Amino acid sequence: MRITDVVVTPIAFPDPPLLNSVGVHEPWVLRTVVEVRTDAGLTGLGETYGDIGHLNRVRAAAPALTGLDVHDLNGIRARVSTALGGQAGSDRHGLTGQLTVESTVDRVFSPFEVATWDIRGKALDRPVVDLLGGAVRDAVPYSAYLFYKWAGHPGAEPDEWGAALDADGVVAQARELTGRHGFRSIKLKGGVLPPDEEVAAIRALREAFPDHPLRLDPNAAWSPTTGLKVAHELDGVLEYLEDPSPEIEGMAEVAAGSPLPLATNMCTIAFEHLAPSVAAGAVQVVLSDHHYWGGLARSKELAAICRTFGVGLSMHSNSHLGISLAAMTHLAAATPNLDYACDTHYPWNSAWDVLTEPLSFVDGALPVPTGPGLGVELDRDKLAARAEDYRRCGIVQRDDTGYMRTIDPGYERRRPRW
Amino acid sequence: MRITDVVVTPIAFPDPPLLNSVGVHEPWVLRTVVEVRTDAGLTGLGETYGDIGHLNRVRAAAPALTGLDVHDLNGIRARVSTALGGQAGSDRHGLTGQLTVESTVDRVFSPFEVATWDIRGKALDRPVVDLLGGAVRDAVPYSAYLFYKWAGHPGAEPDEWGAALDADGVVAQARELTGRHGFRSIKLKGGVLPPDEEVAAIRALREAFPDHPLRLDPNAAWSPTTGLKVAHELDGVLEYLEDPSPEIEGMAEVAAGSPLPLATNMCTIAFEHLAPSVAAGAVQVVLSDHHYWGGLARSKELAAICRTFGVGLSMHSNSHLGISLAAMTHLAAATPNLDYACDTHYPWNSAWDVLTEPLSFVDGALPVPTGPGLGVELDRDKLAARAEDYRRCGIVQRDDTGYMRTIDPGYERRRPRW
Repeated sequence: MRITDVVVTPIAFPDPPLLNSVGVHEPWVLRTVVEVRTDAGLTGLGETYGDIGHLNRVRAAAPALTGLDVHDLNGIRARVSTALGGQAGSDRHGLTGQLTVESTVDRVFSPFEVATWDIRGKALDRPVVDLLGGAVRDAVPYSAYLFYKWAGHPGAEPDEWGAALDADGVVAQARELTGRHGFRSIKLKGGVLPPDEEVAAIRALREAFPDHPLRLDPNAAWSPTTGLKVAHELDGVLEYLEDPSPEIEGMAEVAAGSPLPLATNMCTIAFEHLAPSVAAGAVQVVLSDHHYWGGLARSKELAAICRTFGVGLSMHSNSHLGISLAAMTHLAAATPNLDYACDTHYPWNSAWDVLTEPLSFVDGALPVPTGPGLGVELDRDKLAARAEDYRRCGIVQRDDTGYMRTIDPGYERRRPRW
Repeated sequence: MRITDVVVTPIAFPDPPLLNSVGVHEPWVLRTVVEVRTDAGLTGLGETYGDIGHLNRVRAAAPALTGLDVHDLNGIRARVSTALGGQAGSDRHGLTGQLTVESTVDRVFSPFEVATWDIRGKALDRPVVDLLGGAVRDAVPYSAYLFYKWAGHPGAEPDEWGAALDADGVVAQARELTGRHGFRSIKLKGGVLPPDEEVAAIRALREAFPDHPLRLDPNAAWSPTTGLKVAHELDGVLEYLEDPSPEIEGMAEVAAGSPLPLATNMCTIAFEHLAPSVAAGAVQVVLSDHHYWGGLARSKELAAICRTFGVGLSMHSNSHLGISLAAMTHLAAATPNLDYACDTHYPWNSAWDVLTEPLSFVDGALPVPTGPGLGVELDRDKLAARAEDYRRCGIVQRDDTGYMRTIDPGYERRRPRW
């Protein structure tokens, strides 16, 4: 079953003004949909980032895959690597910075790899989870992903979510998200307000949701001293503290004195970070993400590494649609040592999904799709509309800081900020 | 495609009197052949150890697999684990000692896991290597595995290989094995004679085979002091030194001062050994072995761990037949970071294989079988003959030391011996 061609479609869809440690989400999310076609008439889907640098790398790699067998993950990754010719990308919205060559290959390889699993599942009439080792859970728990946010983008009407700029707003948002989707864990994206205010928001969440595991993620906005202070203040309140401080060194400094486990999707985001991270004891929970760990098979390898080195495992999310969510769910369902509910931005963007049927959480968990492959179907009209939005929106690169500066010219990116 | 039943057949086949650090191989090797049958009419093969403790555990686990899907590796491993009820086995021939519960599960799970890949390959009409990520090599290099040995078992005629009890004998054996099979790497099982004599044998091999990478494996017969001395003496001669000294601590002590990389199949033989082994810098090359690392998928996880932590990867062998060799070859072919030729005992035992066509090395490498699944077929007459040999031979547990004592009553097992 050989690859005949690959269609790469950049898309855009609306995003609320979600705040984080480097600025605010622009009104449009960029993503890329990949369709891998085969000589057996089967097509597989993948979804990945849409920033122009990454998109161009995906476009450069796509034609190199023609003629390869869909089983040949080693061959496909090698072709991607060759096509990229040693380029190293960067994470341009600035949360994690420059990437290595190997990590850049993994990011570009990922959507193609996911598509091959989709194809193989369809060929066998089996869901992808079966091919990944079998489901250890029928539904994958996700967390309510809370953000500080404005009521709406400047100059636009307030969105359906309204403002969340203090503890009350955060609690209201949590009620809305858990009410709609039944989430049983809650994550707050922090790094936006001074740490005391974010601690207060977490305490308000604890009061309003006494039984929900809670997490706080300031995206490395804090010095190790601040990180340690917050870790002690929230001991017994959070299940883990995510990326309090920058880099493996900063995380290790906090970890050495923290009563809470530390999680990361910033200092340990590629295979080459694992050895120094483990040696430093920098993180107790890795937030895996098949989009940058090189697809589903390599994410299972990451899971095996975490299991072997006594590191916890959870799952990270960027803004995404349903192809990604389906892949995340199959992977999570096949991973025995997934220790926590996964993160997802899906509730913020699902209205704009390109699937024929958007996915739905049940009691805070996504039932593992049971159809062949990923179990989702592309709606071509919706895809065309999002592709048209991409052409119209005028953005080719996520820039949370730049957008913030258009509204607040004095805004500075600082790490640590507190 | 569900498992309907599993047939477990213990077998025995002749073995030459191969010497090692704990004694000598008995005249019979014990193995177990596993046949997993499905409701699709397809059968998969696996091969594993034959010691009675292990055989009984395999027998206990086998009926628990009925009804499971062949894709459901997570489910199969969980059933094996439940069936074993927390038993921990031991490696009774004494090279590695007591096992943990998890490692015992991995050993029992392995032959069933291999059989499921065989079945899945057959169902797709694809070789197993394709399902493991695709072949990065068309043939897998193996090493000539040399042993000190007697001319024949006491009381029996000399065997076809003759004696090898000094450097000349070792070189002659190397000529025979490389001549027959074209091997381009050479491994000497040591720990039998005083270290100086084994160093002399390696030097004689270097002279006779100037371009062949060489290895020496004394199976932890040396103190760290002796290990370090030999490592310095053979610097520039060996590609790696295998298990000079016992345990992670002993290996770390040698590694700290050794100019040669150290390899192991003794101190790091289960996932729970990896973290302490890496932390101690005890080994630079892990000799993987799907028979005890829990099958092919988990061996790929081990490979990913080695790749990630900068540890080399090669492959270990116990006495085995062709089902195992085929599985080893598919796995090795799909593993990009296999850095060295694999070990195999196959030339010592292949005359007794239970396949319709024994496998053949070409220029020291085994071409990856191209047929569906493992690409090998069981010969029922040969299997029946080897099963009859098992019943006749009167041995149920490998005991190299005990057999040595029947010949040399004063023989003592000592570690370290030198």
